[in-house]
Amino acid sequence: MRITVSRKAHFNAAHRLHNPRFSKEKNEAIFGKCNNGNYHGHNYDLEVFVSGEVDEETGYLIDLKVLSDIIKEQIEERFDHKNLNLDVPEFKDVMPSTENFAFIIHRILSEHLDPNFSIQVKLWETPRNAAIYPAIQ
Amino acid sequence: MRITVSRKAHFNAAHRLHNPRFSKEKNEAIFGKCNNGNYHGHNYDLEVFVSGEVDEETGYLIDLKVLSDIIKEQIEERFDHKNLNLDVPEFKDVMPSTENFAFIIHRILSEHLDPNFSIQVKLWETPRNAAIYPAIQ
Amino acid sequence: MRITVSRKAHFNAAHRLHNPRFSKEKNEAIFGKCNNGNYHGHNYDLEVFVSGEVDEETGYLIDLKVLSDIIKEQIEERFDHKNLNLDVPEFKDVMPSTENFAFIIHRILSEHLDPNFSIQVKLWETPRNAAIYPAIQ
Amino acid sequence: MRITVSRKAHFNAAHRLHNPRFSKEKNEAIFGKCNNGNYHGHNYDLEVFVSGEVDEETGYLIDLKVLSDIIKEQIEERFDHKNLNLDVPEFKDVMPSTENFAFIIHRILSEHLDPNFSIQVKLWETPRNAAIYPAIQ
Amino acid sequence: MRITVSRKAHFNAAHRLHNPRFSKEKNEAIFGKCNNGNYHGHNYDLEVFVSGEVDEETGYLIDLKVLSDIIKEQIEERFDHKNLNLDVPEFKDVMPSTENFAFIIHRILSEHLDPNFSIQVKLWETPRNAAIYPAIQ
Amino acid sequence: MRITVSRKAHFNAAHRLHNPRFSKEKNEAIFGKCNNGNYHGHNYDLEVFVSGEVDEETGYLIDLKVLSDIIKEQIEERFDHKNLNLDVPEFKDVMPSTENFAFIIHRILSEHLDPNFSIQVKLWETPRNAAIYPAIQ
Repeated sequence: MRITVSRKAHFNAAHRLHNPRFSKEKNEAIFGKCNNGNYHGHNYDLEVFVSGEVDEETGYLIDLKVLSDIIKEQIEERFDHKNLNLDVPEFKDVMPSTENFAFIIHRILSEHLDPNFSIQVKLWETPRNAAIYPAIQ
Repeated sequence: MRITVSRKAHFNAAHRLHNPRFSKEKNEAIFGKCNNGNYHGHNYDLEVFVSGEVDEETGYLIDLKVLSDIIKEQIEERFDHKNLNLDVPEFKDVMPSTENFAFIIHRILSEHLDPNFSIQVKLWETPRNAAIYPAIQ
Repeated sequence: MRITVSRKAHFNAAHRLHNPRFSKEKNEAIFGKCNNGNYHGHNYDLEVFVSGEVDEETGYLIDLKVLSDIIKEQIEERFDHKNLNLDVPEFKDVMPSTENFAFIIHRILSEHLDPNFSIQVKLWETPRNAAIYPAIQ
Repeated sequence: MRITVSRKAHFNAAHRLHNPRFSKEKNEAIFGKCNNGNYHGHNYDLEVFVSGEVDEETGYLIDLKVLSDIIKEQIEERFDHKNLNLDVPEFKDVMPSTENFAFIIHRILSEHLDPNFSIQVKLWETPRNAAIYPAIQ
Repeated sequence: MRITVSRKAHFNAAHRLHNPRFSKEKNEAIFGKCNNGNYHGHNYDLEVFVSGEVDEETGYLIDLKVLSDIIKEQIEERFDHKNLNLDVPEFKDVMPSTENFAFIIHRILSEHLDPNFSIQVKLWETPRNAAIYPAIQ
Repeated sequence: MRITVSRKAHFNAAHRLHNPRFSKEKNEAIFGKCNNGNYHGHNYDLEVFVSGEVDEETGYLIDLKVLSDIIKEQIEERFDHKNLNLDVPEFKDVMPSTENFAFIIHRILSEHLDPNFSIQVKLWETPRNAAIYPAIQ
């Protein structure tokens, strides 16, 4: 009996989108207001999907208390109230776009969860914009 | 033209997580606050996804009035304002976890809908915790 | 500069509505499905409104970390995953209706917050039903 | 690195469900209140999912400003504050059901986005009813 | 012990904003897209606030089943899936703006609820636009 | 006929809480993670309430298109994608707390709306934390 459970989490952070290999003009043309050198910020909403087999004895795929603790320790504590560009080594050479952020969260969670599970993350940068990794189709 | 329609429903129930084959200590260690012998409860939110071919004459995959009536009669009336452990035969020998609950709702709906449809259910136990059956990946 | 801050919290509990001074028939007639002797349950959403003067040095009416800790210790830990009728002394002789529950939460919080603050609570029993104490008009 | 981004949009419109090849009685029996000859209406919520490869230089799958402009120009301006039956050529010979509407939005967006992208749309007619094209399974 | 309870409801309708005493040009200038002669529509969300004294025996201000039945019979059945301009006598000589609609819903509910209660309604025409009657300040 | 209309808006910004008259230790003790020298950020949600008399000819208290344009020009363009501490003169000598931010938004909107209107603003810094000015009680 293969099933998926999902768990939501929340944190906030500052960032800017700026590629040092682009000129000032190209950065402004591509990233617009997101290029502001003084940073802007977001409340990020995260939904983590974990798929696998249910344990018959507990009725659990995974204890959601365990999953939420892993999300708290590995994701919320790492990113909450941080400046993604300045405070977070994962974004040293990576653009802190929603797409890359979803990919990095997926990689971190994969390292801390049973490899038999399939993991997918959906990360909302605003209530209207989100990224999902891996792709849904 | 294969498409999916979804319909949301809502009900509430009491339950506890307790495996009679476990010791008191093991039940408390695994299920924590969810093991409270006097029960606790939830507002459950349900989204039912039905996939199949659209009828060209009506523009409908399925009349959503029909689908919502089936959900009301088969799911809401069976589970709403109930104690899952004491009042619901489906959970006589099955842990009333969100995972098992999603599986049971899927089985009941499958028995009352056209077998040509593919059905998936997402059941939220809280706004942050949900189970999806069948698995999304 | 008088202002209001609000903070949301979440917990869940089981309860039933039953007045021991009513007959079985009267209890069923008045409380309907909410009278189920085996209990049912809800995810409760709480919004706490605190009104008063802003501290010019901090820009805070009250440190929301302090407010959320008081809500966690005094409300969530007291009521979360509990059976209101059996586990909670506050409801020993009081019907656990949303109205009375909002009143009790208001009383508890008032005992733990600066008496110079005006407090109002809105408690949702379901996404559609809520009680507000004190009354808005 | 294949990923999905999603963007939400919102518009409102009037419509009725009525098949001119059906009798008056059959139209009423099948479409019920939705057959009202004077029309009724909805706030439609739309989530557009675009899947493909991330551009390493920008960190973007697609500039969400570009995506939201295409949605605004091609979907919102075409359908917002319109009567789907009377004002919209796309529904001249097609029932304006949520299913067909999702299909048409998918077709329009596909014509305006890079063909290397895979597109999926979820269209809510009410907070409880939605259609997804292509089907999720 | 004076308290407020609130109950949410939902319905949808078509309407247009058009004052027959205005010229065509003035109607278009003032009402813009809302003046479309073929109508447009909305999902309306309604929150009804009822204030008064709690009944000590039941713990209720008002049985919310009774309140929701009154809302269903007097508001939802009157307005749901209707064209406000053509199907609803209340709007014969009244502009179907959100403001006037909230006022009319308040008047109808006041006629069907105990006059000892104070009633307030909040009506959302879209998730971003609402009217509240009586005014909050 | 005195009524209230409300309109929601959305923007995002970076900020930090830091009082230059406090020591480093006191800033950290009072503001915690919000004191991060590299800034963090939020998606702010704003609800603006305007109270007054309805115009009988239009059915409007205020044209919501006019209100939303004022909010867009005076609030969103001033604060969206900005660093409140560095980019916004209004916060030069004022702590960018939610309380002060709500007060400043209220003052700006009051300068651009008819003085016969009463204005109230609710500003969410996160889905759980908000400030309301003027106070609700």
